[in-house]
Amino acid sequence: MARWEPNAHDRLQRAALDLYGERGFEQTTVAEIAKRAGLTERTFFRYFADKPEVLFSGAGALQEFLVEHVAEAPDSAPPIEVVASALEATAGYFNERREFSAQRQAVIDANVDLRERELIKLASLASAIAEQLRRRGVGDPAAALTAEAGIAVFKAAFERWISEPGQHDFAKLVRDALDELKAVAAGA
Amino acid sequence: MARWEPNAHDRLQRAALDLYGERGFEQTTVAEIAKRAGLTERTFFRYFADKPEVLFSGAGALQEFLVEHVAEAPDSAPPIEVVASALEATAGYFNERREFSAQRQAVIDANVDLRERELIKLASLASAIAEQLRRRGVGDPAAALTAEAGIAVFKAAFERWISEPGQHDFAKLVRDALDELKAVAAGA
Repeated sequence: MARWEPNAHDRLQRAALDLYGERGFEQTTVAEIAKRAGLTERTFFRYFADKPEVLFSGAGALQEFLVEHVAEAPDSAPPIEVVASALEATAGYFNERREFSAQRQAVIDANVDLRERELIKLASLASAIAEQLRRRGVGDPAAALTAEAGIAVFKAAFERWISEPGQHDFAKLVRDALDELKAVAAGA
Repeated sequence: MARWEPNAHDRLQRAALDLYGERGFEQTTVAEIAKRAGLTERTFFRYFADKPEVLFSGAGALQEFLVEHVAEAPDSAPPIEVVASALEATAGYFNERREFSAQRQAVIDANVDLRERELIKLASLASAIAEQLRRRGVGDPAAALTAEAGIAVFKAAFERWISEPGQHDFAKLVRDALDELKAVAAGA
């Protein structure tokens, strides 16, 4: 009978990220991750389909969260503000996971396959947001352009958040990046 | 001795696109492409490394062209105008290849691996443009945001160009998409 392992998901994720950082993603085995976490391989596969899944399991939840926020925004809000507010609302999640996020990003940046998977996740996020904007009555190309501008803002905010030690509030960085996008688009 | 085959590159590309469209990308073999073009497999591999290369061989030239235009723009031009002008300048290329481009896009849209490869090419294009903007003295995040906004504009223009039968001038569609982006960013 399977023992109940308290906090197994997080222990496995922590162990995996540490090992990916120490040895490289390719060089790490699931057996090593399970061992470092004090758990079995079988437990690993109860939580994650494979090694990359440890890095990308949060992407689906993030997408749902953003889409829901876009759906619930007031009708009167301009589309870019709807998307920016949704991105700002992720700060509660990200602000608590700054070290995890930085470590995760370093692993992804070091591996071309993981970088490609990250790109695909972000493209899927942009499509889902654009689709939700269309349901709110935003036409094309505005829906697609707004969603892609939103993802560009998210990436700029995220990069600054993990690379500048003094930056702790993700929401403020989203707002700064949006202001920068507005200036850029206006031809400043 | 290898015979010189006039226009072999274009004949192979034409035959490949027709077959990808008729049978699907996966179901088409290099032998079939060569046969349809009246050439040998060996000739195919003189021009293309593999089946996807038929669809993506132009991406490198497009990237070089755009980066060069960004490099040569007047110093006084705002970054978003520099990128928009470079995109408009591709119209000479695209306007002559509307049918080819539409056929190529249909093949890509129908295959998840090709869609991913296209995403990766566009991300690489955005990085190359951002890098060239930095060389012109544009800081970050403005350089990255401008390049990504430019790619969003390019995609919006391209989609309209191949999906709306009345649209023949790619440059005009780039300008329209840029105006739309400006309106979106301003919160219209």
